[in-house]
Amino acid sequence: MSTPHPIVALTSSSSWALIEDKFTPFGKETLANLIDFVQNEVLPATKLAHAQIPTNPETRWKTERPILEELKAKAKKRGLWNLFLSKAHYPEHGVPLTNLEYAVMAEVLGGAGHIASEAVNCSAPDTGNMEVLARYGSPAQQKKWLLPLLNGEIRSAFAMTERFVASSDATNIRTSVRREGNEIVINGHKWWISGAGDARAKIHLVLGKSDPNNEKKYHQQSIVLVPADTPGVKIIRPMHVFGYDDAPEGHWEVIYENVRVPLDNLVLGWGRGFEIIQGRLGPGRIHHCMRSIGVAQNALNLMIQRVTDPSRKTFGKYLFEHGTVVADIAHCRAEIEGARLLVLSAALQIDKYKAKGAMKEIAIAKFVVPTMALNVLDRAMQAFGAEGLSQDQELAAAYAGLRTLRLADGPDAVHIQQVGQKELRRAKELTEQSNALKKKQNALLQKWNVKAHL
Amino acid sequence: MSTPHPIVALTSSSSWALIEDKFTPFGKETLANLIDFVQNEVLPATKLAHAQIPTNPETRWKTERPILEELKAKAKKRGLWNLFLSKAHYPEHGVPLTNLEYAVMAEVLGGAGHIASEAVNCSAPDTGNMEVLARYGSPAQQKKWLLPLLNGEIRSAFAMTERFVASSDATNIRTSVRREGNEIVINGHKWWISGAGDARAKIHLVLGKSDPNNEKKYHQQSIVLVPADTPGVKIIRPMHVFGYDDAPEGHWEVIYENVRVPLDNLVLGWGRGFEIIQGRLGPGRIHHCMRSIGVAQNALNLMIQRVTDPSRKTFGKYLFEHGTVVADIAHCRAEIEGARLLVLSAALQIDKYKAKGAMKEIAIAKFVVPTMALNVLDRAMQAFGAEGLSQDQELAAAYAGLRTLRLADGPDAVHIQQVGQKELRRAKELTEQSNALKKKQNALLQKWNVKAHL
Amino acid sequence: MSTPHPIVALTSSSSWALIEDKFTPFGKETLANLIDFVQNEVLPATKLAHAQIPTNPETRWKTERPILEELKAKAKKRGLWNLFLSKAHYPEHGVPLTNLEYAVMAEVLGGAGHIASEAVNCSAPDTGNMEVLARYGSPAQQKKWLLPLLNGEIRSAFAMTERFVASSDATNIRTSVRREGNEIVINGHKWWISGAGDARAKIHLVLGKSDPNNEKKYHQQSIVLVPADTPGVKIIRPMHVFGYDDAPEGHWEVIYENVRVPLDNLVLGWGRGFEIIQGRLGPGRIHHCMRSIGVAQNALNLMIQRVTDPSRKTFGKYLFEHGTVVADIAHCRAEIEGARLLVLSAALQIDKYKAKGAMKEIAIAKFVVPTMALNVLDRAMQAFGAEGLSQDQELAAAYAGLRTLRLADGPDAVHIQQVGQKELRRAKELTEQSNALKKKQNALLQKWNVKAHL
Amino acid sequence: MSTPHPIVALTSSSSWALIEDKFTPFGKETLANLIDFVQNEVLPATKLAHAQIPTNPETRWKTERPILEELKAKAKKRGLWNLFLSKAHYPEHGVPLTNLEYAVMAEVLGGAGHIASEAVNCSAPDTGNMEVLARYGSPAQQKKWLLPLLNGEIRSAFAMTERFVASSDATNIRTSVRREGNEIVINGHKWWISGAGDARAKIHLVLGKSDPNNEKKYHQQSIVLVPADTPGVKIIRPMHVFGYDDAPEGHWEVIYENVRVPLDNLVLGWGRGFEIIQGRLGPGRIHHCMRSIGVAQNALNLMIQRVTDPSRKTFGKYLFEHGTVVADIAHCRAEIEGARLLVLSAALQIDKYKAKGAMKEIAIAKFVVPTMALNVLDRAMQAFGAEGLSQDQELAAAYAGLRTLRLADGPDAVHIQQVGQKELRRAKELTEQSNALKKKQNALLQKWNVKAHL
Repeated sequence: MSTPHPIVALTSSSSWALIEDKFTPFGKETLANLIDFVQNEVLPATKLAHAQIPTNPETRWKTERPILEELKAKAKKRGLWNLFLSKAHYPEHGVPLTNLEYAVMAEVLGGAGHIASEAVNCSAPDTGNMEVLARYGSPAQQKKWLLPLLNGEIRSAFAMTERFVASSDATNIRTSVRREGNEIVINGHKWWISGAGDARAKIHLVLGKSDPNNEKKYHQQSIVLVPADTPGVKIIRPMHVFGYDDAPEGHWEVIYENVRVPLDNLVLGWGRGFEIIQGRLGPGRIHHCMRSIGVAQNALNLMIQRVTDPSRKTFGKYLFEHGTVVADIAHCRAEIEGARLLVLSAALQIDKYKAKGAMKEIAIAKFVVPTMALNVLDRAMQAFGAEGLSQDQELAAAYAGLRTLRLADGPDAVHIQQVGQKELRRAKELTEQSNALKKKQNALLQKWNVKAHL
Repeated sequence: MSTPHPIVALTSSSSWALIEDKFTPFGKETLANLIDFVQNEVLPATKLAHAQIPTNPETRWKTERPILEELKAKAKKRGLWNLFLSKAHYPEHGVPLTNLEYAVMAEVLGGAGHIASEAVNCSAPDTGNMEVLARYGSPAQQKKWLLPLLNGEIRSAFAMTERFVASSDATNIRTSVRREGNEIVINGHKWWISGAGDARAKIHLVLGKSDPNNEKKYHQQSIVLVPADTPGVKIIRPMHVFGYDDAPEGHWEVIYENVRVPLDNLVLGWGRGFEIIQGRLGPGRIHHCMRSIGVAQNALNLMIQRVTDPSRKTFGKYLFEHGTVVADIAHCRAEIEGARLLVLSAALQIDKYKAKGAMKEIAIAKFVVPTMALNVLDRAMQAFGAEGLSQDQELAAAYAGLRTLRLADGPDAVHIQQVGQKELRRAKELTEQSNALKKKQNALLQKWNVKAHL
Repeated sequence: MSTPHPIVALTSSSSWALIEDKFTPFGKETLANLIDFVQNEVLPATKLAHAQIPTNPETRWKTERPILEELKAKAKKRGLWNLFLSKAHYPEHGVPLTNLEYAVMAEVLGGAGHIASEAVNCSAPDTGNMEVLARYGSPAQQKKWLLPLLNGEIRSAFAMTERFVASSDATNIRTSVRREGNEIVINGHKWWISGAGDARAKIHLVLGKSDPNNEKKYHQQSIVLVPADTPGVKIIRPMHVFGYDDAPEGHWEVIYENVRVPLDNLVLGWGRGFEIIQGRLGPGRIHHCMRSIGVAQNALNLMIQRVTDPSRKTFGKYLFEHGTVVADIAHCRAEIEGARLLVLSAALQIDKYKAKGAMKEIAIAKFVVPTMALNVLDRAMQAFGAEGLSQDQELAAAYAGLRTLRLADGPDAVHIQQVGQKELRRAKELTEQSNALKKKQNALLQKWNVKAHL
Repeated sequence: MSTPHPIVALTSSSSWALIEDKFTPFGKETLANLIDFVQNEVLPATKLAHAQIPTNPETRWKTERPILEELKAKAKKRGLWNLFLSKAHYPEHGVPLTNLEYAVMAEVLGGAGHIASEAVNCSAPDTGNMEVLARYGSPAQQKKWLLPLLNGEIRSAFAMTERFVASSDATNIRTSVRREGNEIVINGHKWWISGAGDARAKIHLVLGKSDPNNEKKYHQQSIVLVPADTPGVKIIRPMHVFGYDDAPEGHWEVIYENVRVPLDNLVLGWGRGFEIIQGRLGPGRIHHCMRSIGVAQNALNLMIQRVTDPSRKTFGKYLFEHGTVVADIAHCRAEIEGARLLVLSAALQIDKYKAKGAMKEIAIAKFVVPTMALNVLDRAMQAFGAEGLSQDQELAAAYAGLRTLRLADGPDAVHIQQVGQKELRRAKELTEQSNALKKKQNALLQKWNVKAHL
């Protein structure tokens, strides 16, 4: 592209031409604002923010990072806040951005490392939790938990996955949620609960079985709000991903042992747990995907710098003059472009037909993007040599993070099967069309009195 | 997608949402017209058109197919004619369609087999040749050759590739083109000249060396118009591709032996050959790509029908219930979607920045799409068993045709290197940005008096 | 390898060291004899043998090629005859070679094109048919059909696959074989019957259903000997693979219409058809695999010559100096070596444990080798440009032939599933071992009074 | 394989048949002894050994693990000690095992986790260092450092890679090694020095430039023995690999600042550094490869257990009944078998032709095996879900370790290029053979008076 539109200079993507006219003036302005904020505030602060995470195990999970609070204040002032929450679906608290518009912003955030999303209050799992509370929370629940979340004053956890349980099939979940008088009593053994051990996470949304004998399998579950300091909430340990503990949030093993909360902490109603988690998933997957594309683009940028670095010459040649480096870079470029277009197309599909009408597109993005990004990162790591695997570059940590995305919200296989099955549903119509066509073709042969070649 | 827009029902692609608003009313109407024509006229005629190619070697290359003439007449009447020729670039003869609009139509044509493009007078190599004559031809040349080509009365050949020469580097070309008085004398040994042995091909555009000692390597070549019946034009044999002779056009070995044409047959001027072939390539590659996507989409549709066919059950199960078939189909779907978006994005880029400003996008499409389509076809062939490799299905022939696209207009490697090199040009700016950023990051660490983690 | 053992100079493989000591003196001598014969007699004759296949459709399938008869006479004289028939299993007619020894010879044959196998009377489907007759034929059947086959005087066909039937599940087969008095009456519609239209093929082994209601699904089938000139044997057309008809043998559509043969033509007994075809498959697959490796090795050799050819330089560089060619060649080399070792290992496994005890190894070879060889060929074709896809090189025809091997004797998926299922059978033992180990590990922790890290 | 030979029951590999007869009785006995030791002593102790690594950063790098000393004593008693050191090359201290025999043992060790190799005193980098000292060390050097290493009393480091230097081209190395009177003074900045921060590592072999202006680039380097407690040896920090610090050994950044050692600490002689590191590499790569295969085999075993675990059922099905799991397992099996055979073949090649005569085979193994093993691990991790990426399974840590092998001892690209270039050297001979053959083929055509098909 001769002269990239300034707004996407960050990623130099040609897909901008396809979507530019779908941005409102507010969308464009916000994107420009965000890019400016990320470049001039967030990126310069990433090293400091990393350094402000204590290495001491005593304090590692208990510290607020001053630089982050400063960034959050600046972002709020710029109007860059809760961008994920679509006004179309959440009129009261939402921001007037489409899924497509926010998707582009998610790439910008993803390319800027972990703190960017938090700086604009768009971090998982808070985003999904805020959507749940905004859509399904009672006024009291919203006042107590949604508002501080929207303000970035607290953080939250979503407790679904269970240890010793194949919980990618959510009907397998065993945590017990039962009413006892005016209280709800919760007992269960969860893990991989992101942020649960972070001192700032004040509220857990816990999915459990309230009606295990209901013959409708998807009406057995309920979601309950559990304040983090409720007696019986036992934070066991952070799970590691590869060798990373992902402080300051972490992914935690948590045991809920006879945890008691008031009846009012039930979300939406008994047996509505499944309905809630279903609504929570679609757009979030797109955000994950676009952040991943930002990560991949960033890795490619690093790789390009490395292979052209004169101090890295070996045997008298630049790294890019060796082996298959140039071809590797070309493949990275092509794979990133193709994947980005798939996600943007899915985001637009959601805008047009809601998440339900975009299931195939979401599923495609969900299984294509993480693998694509992992491949790009792997090539970049290879270009960096051992340093690329170490704490001195961000690549290996990013790889670990992306690797979880081939499992989170369902392993690849689930989405692949879903797309395949959806395609198979076209069989009947296709076969009917083919049969009708063959008849016409044969009729024409007969009419012209010509014999088909064998 | 819940309800596909009728206009793209043929391909049920979600990318339509991304581009719909870039179509003019004329573009949409023409697309709908074309889809209707293809479904109701072209597809029913494919078997007949195939049957009308004689198998007898004596007549195989000499026959006009009546059904094709009928289709051409119908297409012309519907206004579906020369759709490839953009009015923006060729005001006199062109059609007011953008590259993007025609790209979608090219997919429709590609999915309908060989005769569809010819029926609407959009077949290679005529398309490129008409562009050359429309842009660079003298009025006399246009009157004599362009008009009958535009009318679909004759066909043409483009003679560039040479036997015994590594002609993917066009400076290697050896055919001699020299002036002798008022005549041009041509001597050379070409091959893979598509259509040259087809009786309907009346004119060859021949690239040769007119000034082999010119120190500017790209000013040594000229293009000359050679009527097919000029003495000395020797049609040697059709080259086969995986055993196919691709009648009725074929790809020919041709020897030009002391061929003499008037001086007026020179195109544009002495030494301008390279300039002409450069202008000829960009959009044509996009058309090839979109036709390939039509082929891939078609193969997927066939595969879906096969694996759901109850008469193909083995061991009590449908084919789709075995092995990795469902996953294969999902990957086909995802790969087609991603590739289509890449090509559409490149087409739009051409519309916005001309072919020169879309070189990276064109190159990406050029190396991604054929390999993608071959993979889809290979999976489809596997689903069909041996029948999938035979004359009873169109898959193997389509595979052979697509396989040539990894070589035509430059092998994959050329385009891959081009994209990689273009990416490397970003190195300087990226490195400067990184260095500036690192300074800011370190300044901030110092300002806060925090030490970075090792 | 510094100095390759002369005996494997043809393939320069390092795997020779692994197997050399498993060759008997006779095996080594025969291999040397065969390599000499192939290099000095077969390879010089390949072009002539190809030229002796008439292109005229009238005579194409009816001609014996004199050069082939000459080669066969020479081979017989040298003792290079029926090498596939193991004396261990067929004491009367067999040759004292192991499967491993013959496997190496099959690679030599495969690398020398189609005529090599025929020259030493080791062509499919005759090889399998001779094994059937040698093992299961009555003395009369052997005298009438086996002896002329062993002498290379006639050829044969094996009629199993059926049109309109998913016959990769052989229980689906519909051809009817029923007794009527002293005759057997056969009615059925077969295709892909290799050699059936070759004038030299005098005998068909036809698999059909003789007892369709037998509740044992694998006792419903019988095999009958049908002389090719029996009334009712209708040779319909040759099936093409890609665009090749594979003359002079071809793969034929054949209809058996009220074909009557004497009762004596039943092989082995009523309902024994499945048993016969089971015994026919194992070693044959290994031979196919080794021939494929010969083809791949040959393609790599051609590729190496092409990319170092000074007349193929582009932009001032050898082809191997462009793009990823050197890496492509390295991958070809590595893939060929790995695949060859897998097949040799399977061959040895058969020698040690019979085909039944080598099922996993055979299945691995069966799905790994053809795909490997296709990848090698594809890279070679790419190096040759369009010429690589044409009749001027052997690559595309070899590709088409190898592509059928991903389907013949069961599609890849069947063998992949078989290996996967076999692996799963190890689950019980592995799980028991793991559980026992965990107990020991925990006991040791307790004994040392140490707590495991979380 | 029906009944696996007990000696390879651990890996149930069919390659045993290929190599069994190349084992001496001592080799077989030692292998059986090793397998017994690993199963009954090492594997039960792995959890304890892991628990004995302190998590406290103060003590983490300073602790000897009692269980390991116990295992070492048991191994020594069983005669399972220094198995890597071939008597053929090191008559004084070596063990009478071939490379092939030890390769199989390396797989056994690799499959049993980190401590197995150490338990039998076969850990890198000690193995390579002992080989250097045994081959090139002076009697005094051997007495002081080799003997305690051979006895497993101390450990060692090999300091080659440098920070800020593209040290995969060893001529780039900058560490200065210069003589000053009777001393050698060393100044340099190394990193990725495995074990350098481990309290047990008493001696560093440091590669530096002693003669930077020598016009022979490979005579500029020397190797010096530096006791770990020499003043000026500064242990900076452990490098992490995917978040792992790989305690208790670790990979360290080390600065040598005016480190002074006696002249006697020079190894072999001035300018012989390159010669030494060259001799150090070949067999070591094979050991790495076989250990990797052990890791891959182990991962496959774990995967098989997981996908058949009834407690992991989702949607009513075992994991292996979903998606492409069975096919994934089959591919793992096939890839492991093929890779193992390649390494065994390379090991045998070393035995026959020394490392120099096996360079191609070693290079192939070096680039094929780690990628293969990473693919197997990746599939296994995917089967285990998030748990597979965590500290509760060994898979992610193994992945990180294997990932370094695509870079250690030269990145993949180096070995790929080496193999490709070696193949290209066959071009001349192949081309001559082809030309000779073509002449013969044409002569035969002429003799028979037949025209070749075009």
